[in-house]
Amino acid sequence: MLPTPKKVTVVAGSGEGDHKLTAFDNALLAAGIGNLNLIKVSSILPPECELVERLDIPPGSLTPTAYGALASDVKGDRIAAAVAVGFSDRDYGTIMEFSGHCTREEAEQKVRAMVEEAFRRRGMALRDVRVAAAEMVVGDRPGAVVAAAVLWY
Amino acid sequence: MLPTPKKVTVVAGSGEGDHKLTAFDNALLAAGIGNLNLIKVSSILPPECELVERLDIPPGSLTPTAYGALASDVKGDRIAAAVAVGFSDRDYGTIMEFSGHCTREEAEQKVRAMVEEAFRRRGMALRDVRVAAAEMVVGDRPGAVVAAAVLWY
Amino acid sequence: MLPTPKKVTVVAGSGEGDHKLTAFDNALLAAGIGNLNLIKVSSILPPECELVERLDIPPGSLTPTAYGALASDVKGDRIAAAVAVGFSDRDYGTIMEFSGHCTREEAEQKVRAMVEEAFRRRGMALRDVRVAAAEMVVGDRPGAVVAAAVLWY
Repeated sequence: MLPTPKKVTVVAGSGEGDHKLTAFDNALLAAGIGNLNLIKVSSILPPECELVERLDIPPGSLTPTAYGALASDVKGDRIAAAVAVGFSDRDYGTIMEFSGHCTREEAEQKVRAMVEEAFRRRGMALRDVRVAAAEMVVGDRPGAVVAAAVLWY
Repeated sequence: MLPTPKKVTVVAGSGEGDHKLTAFDNALLAAGIGNLNLIKVSSILPPECELVERLDIPPGSLTPTAYGALASDVKGDRIAAAVAVGFSDRDYGTIMEFSGHCTREEAEQKVRAMVEEAFRRRGMALRDVRVAAAEMVVGDRPGAVVAAAVLWY
Repeated sequence: MLPTPKKVTVVAGSGEGDHKLTAFDNALLAAGIGNLNLIKVSSILPPECELVERLDIPPGSLTPTAYGALASDVKGDRIAAAVAVGFSDRDYGTIMEFSGHCTREEAEQKVRAMVEEAFRRRGMALRDVRVAAAEMVVGDRPGAVVAAAVLWY
């Protein structure tokens, strides 16, 4: 099987670019994950996965990541992305991500509430939640936000 | 290279939640795959991949999966998802997935027809097709359906 | 960790089918990647990744791929997809992909410009760019285009 990640790092960022995809690239760079090959996963914190504050992954690495992202080229658009990682006492956890046209606080609230619901649904006790979020108002150039739980080794 | 999966299991489910993403989480739980890290793949059954009725995968595992899913928060919406796995006599097979605003039967028909077309196009004989599908009508809370071909080891 | 790819191949293709997903399947076959399990990645060329003209990957392999794709069932729609891989002198590179309702030339221009921007942003010198693109006008049946940078081993 594919190796199960052992570490999790929670990041967020925003960026602008000449195109929506380069704005996304710049948001990833701002979040510290712009030089990785993100593989989108949905969205479980593996058991015994350790929270690590600082990423240390070589460029180009295939990196399983649960993330929410949004890009816009509409001037004045307020966009936000948030991710929440819920840690249990002794088992796996859950990760929830969100992006939308809202404030950072609203996005944070949403992912927190979703993690709480996912834990309730599983009958598990929520020991801790770690959240990262980003918000921006799009200016003259396209903008993007991203919030990510990076799973690594 | 990444290890090629050796087993396939076909599942489907539906669920409700306070948000569309937790409805999706509950649909995944109903399908028996809510505690995995799904990695979306498009969509080939590897050669010598064995059909297994029951999943046995530790939580948090990175799990290559071909799936169709749809979430809705519009009360009264009928949503369905289906997946079909086509098995050949001696070689790889194909997987087709679909989700939309339709009945389970329509979704099933569609994925069957798509697998048949994919086999015809490749000049391969279709030995067997395995289908899973789910349907729901959205009520007061957001709902989601998922149908998945899980590839594992 | 997951093994980092060592080779890159750049391909594109278009196809028609009875459904949008089988049109996509046929576009993948035309591009030479229809029998792989593509895992979408975003979008870095790993360091020391070698450009290889011809793919040689067994069917069903899990294959990290950066791609742009678009399917349409609207007769007369012009659709295009392009991918560009930027090579640096001594380090990792970047990959940009695009799909939209435009000509092949417009899609190519867009991915080239995005790779140039991503290199400028990183303060890196762009040694070479490799582009692949496809375009079609949708006829009576659904059509699809795909352009992909396939990362392999």
